[in-house]
Amino acid sequence: MTIHFQWEKIEQRQPLIHQITNYVTVNDCANVTLAAGASPVMAQAVEEVAEMARLSQALVLNIGTLDHAPNEAMIRAGKAANEDKVPVVLDPVGVGATTFRYESVQELLQQVHFSVIRGNASEISTICGIREGKGVDASSGISSDRMESIKQLAKELNTVIAVSGAVDYITDGTREAHISNGTPLLTKITGTGCMTTALIGCCLGAGISAFESAITSLLSMGIVGEWAEREVGKEDLGRFHQYLLNGFGRMNSDWLQEEGRINVTSAG
Amino acid sequence: MTIHFQWEKIEQRQPLIHQITNYVTVNDCANVTLAAGASPVMAQAVEEVAEMARLSQALVLNIGTLDHAPNEAMIRAGKAANEDKVPVVLDPVGVGATTFRYESVQELLQQVHFSVIRGNASEISTICGIREGKGVDASSGISSDRMESIKQLAKELNTVIAVSGAVDYITDGTREAHISNGTPLLTKITGTGCMTTALIGCCLGAGISAFESAITSLLSMGIVGEWAEREVGKEDLGRFHQYLLNGFGRMNSDWLQEEGRINVTSAG
Amino acid sequence: MTIHFQWEKIEQRQPLIHQITNYVTVNDCANVTLAAGASPVMAQAVEEVAEMARLSQALVLNIGTLDHAPNEAMIRAGKAANEDKVPVVLDPVGVGATTFRYESVQELLQQVHFSVIRGNASEISTICGIREGKGVDASSGISSDRMESIKQLAKELNTVIAVSGAVDYITDGTREAHISNGTPLLTKITGTGCMTTALIGCCLGAGISAFESAITSLLSMGIVGEWAEREVGKEDLGRFHQYLLNGFGRMNSDWLQEEGRINVTSAG
Repeated sequence: MTIHFQWEKIEQRQPLIHQITNYVTVNDCANVTLAAGASPVMAQAVEEVAEMARLSQALVLNIGTLDHAPNEAMIRAGKAANEDKVPVVLDPVGVGATTFRYESVQELLQQVHFSVIRGNASEISTICGIREGKGVDASSGISSDRMESIKQLAKELNTVIAVSGAVDYITDGTREAHISNGTPLLTKITGTGCMTTALIGCCLGAGISAFESAITSLLSMGIVGEWAEREVGKEDLGRFHQYLLNGFGRMNSDWLQEEGRINVTSAG
Repeated sequence: MTIHFQWEKIEQRQPLIHQITNYVTVNDCANVTLAAGASPVMAQAVEEVAEMARLSQALVLNIGTLDHAPNEAMIRAGKAANEDKVPVVLDPVGVGATTFRYESVQELLQQVHFSVIRGNASEISTICGIREGKGVDASSGISSDRMESIKQLAKELNTVIAVSGAVDYITDGTREAHISNGTPLLTKITGTGCMTTALIGCCLGAGISAFESAITSLLSMGIVGEWAEREVGKEDLGRFHQYLLNGFGRMNSDWLQEEGRINVTSAG
Repeated sequence: MTIHFQWEKIEQRQPLIHQITNYVTVNDCANVTLAAGASPVMAQAVEEVAEMARLSQALVLNIGTLDHAPNEAMIRAGKAANEDKVPVVLDPVGVGATTFRYESVQELLQQVHFSVIRGNASEISTICGIREGKGVDASSGISSDRMESIKQLAKELNTVIAVSGAVDYITDGTREAHISNGTPLLTKITGTGCMTTALIGCCLGAGISAFESAITSLLSMGIVGEWAEREVGKEDLGRFHQYLLNGFGRMNSDWLQEEGRINVTSAG
């Protein structure tokens, strides 16, 4: 099975991407959204999130620095988006760390339909019912015996689940993709996970299907990471960070096609 | 009519600039304030904003990621600043996007006197009573038939209104300035609008008049943007971003005088 | 007296550092934590801070953009950390500026035991009972006649107090260290103070003693600042900022030993 990449749709449609996200990496999320050709708007006031979500082409919910109000805001925004068929993506940052995050994510999953859920292996395992992991940067790969339960969850939730790691794993419950692009440098700076989720929002907002949005975003992050490492070496993390943004400004479907190390299979 | 630039006053007086702003671009706002020679302080707790505003030389209110508390904080800070003759500048980020933002800005305009209001064409048009526009990055120029209503509003509010765009437009209700410096790259990264507003705060805090503060700030952003583009090209947005900050560290009145493409007229 | 530096312990133990901090410099704090080899987690919801603090190896409280909820969160997190012997470090940003900040810090000092308190001369003087100073970036050195009262306070609070400045001063009430590394460029960008405090958290979390954690962190910032200035010059603040992060990625105990200009004395 081959993917027909449609990166250019982002710049063509310039979708507005409403993001309720954490204050740690929000600047990176805004800049990567711009670099990809979309338009970011951050808004978390309970009074305006539904209206903002409705006029956007995609909604990104990231629980990285959740507190009271944003959670209510996330639910309102998510419900409004669902009503208006605006696709929603969830980043359950550090969901395994505390009861509060776990319960917040459970509530979100009950009240909002997500087109895509993206996290690392620890976060996704937690959502699958296996509470573990400590921090928010656990980036090891997902064990193959867990893939079945992830597939099952994707089916139950009618969503696409994307697991970032040394090898990325993406499934819609039927189809599965494995991506082996990337570099450990991507885990040495904060925000690359959140940026990947923002990119999924950009793809969804451009009208790309959920499964292909997830693949396109995780693959582009891997390829841009490799390119940035080639350009600046391993020693200059600050410049590596810069080159990530530059890379998304240059990204195109041919680049994804040529350098993507991706394997897609279907349950058939 | 010529402008006698006084950029050096910022470094000479090192004004303290109190900023209640959004969490997306706050780091850039702090760094540009430092680069210009002023001293930033961010504080939004309702309990302290009035005290902080009173000991500052200027107050910047930016509604980019407004929620409940900051709004009350903005009004308290603004009123305290007004009482103590501390100049206040408003950045009505995305005011046209939601009812909440629109009403929040209306309330601010009723309760606080602003020395300068800076936004893009869509935001300023909204304040003039023409609700339109979707996002927060609309950066097209202002149509010439709208200038009259902007002039009228500036007169009514006894303020200076500055519209960032391909050609910037600034008016105090009588005088008008048009600035044609700048580069589209300034719209490819987040924060250049917010930074411009922070710079207006720096100028106001240094004792520069409201009209000249607005001109100086928008012009300096245009000139620094052109310089940064010459230095780093169009492909390295991350380094372009860096060079913006470097540029403000080098900025001076001669540079503004020499490279400024500005036309100031008076209703006379 | 000589210091046996143990920088490598950070990467070996990869401690999780829970940070309740300000939204201005939070991204820098996360990135410097990663660069040093530790793992950052930012969380400020009242519902989760105690749990997060307990599973962390150190807790960093930074009052830079304090408002209601974070303060309660700080106290809860601090108490939980104290109970579980998780070391806590305080950065009283701008404590001299407003009554609210002053009282918030007083409350924190009453309710939480801190292993280290780090600030600039103005902030630490305020805590010593001398209210003065305006902004958050006062970076002048501490006068020698104030050192005695700082020493006294360190003894009373059973803590280590670290004062950043042209010459850093660190005391545990008995021992004193003076560090003369550094560059004025460190005061030209926002966040270097907050980053230093985050580094103290990294050292504490790696099991380094409080006095040596403070010395190691302030010294490393001075040395990395000097190195970054040599590498990029004085004109490129953006790149200087990058090189700070790069420097902490390269930091090691030998470098601290070789380039450290430090004088440690004991009351004996």
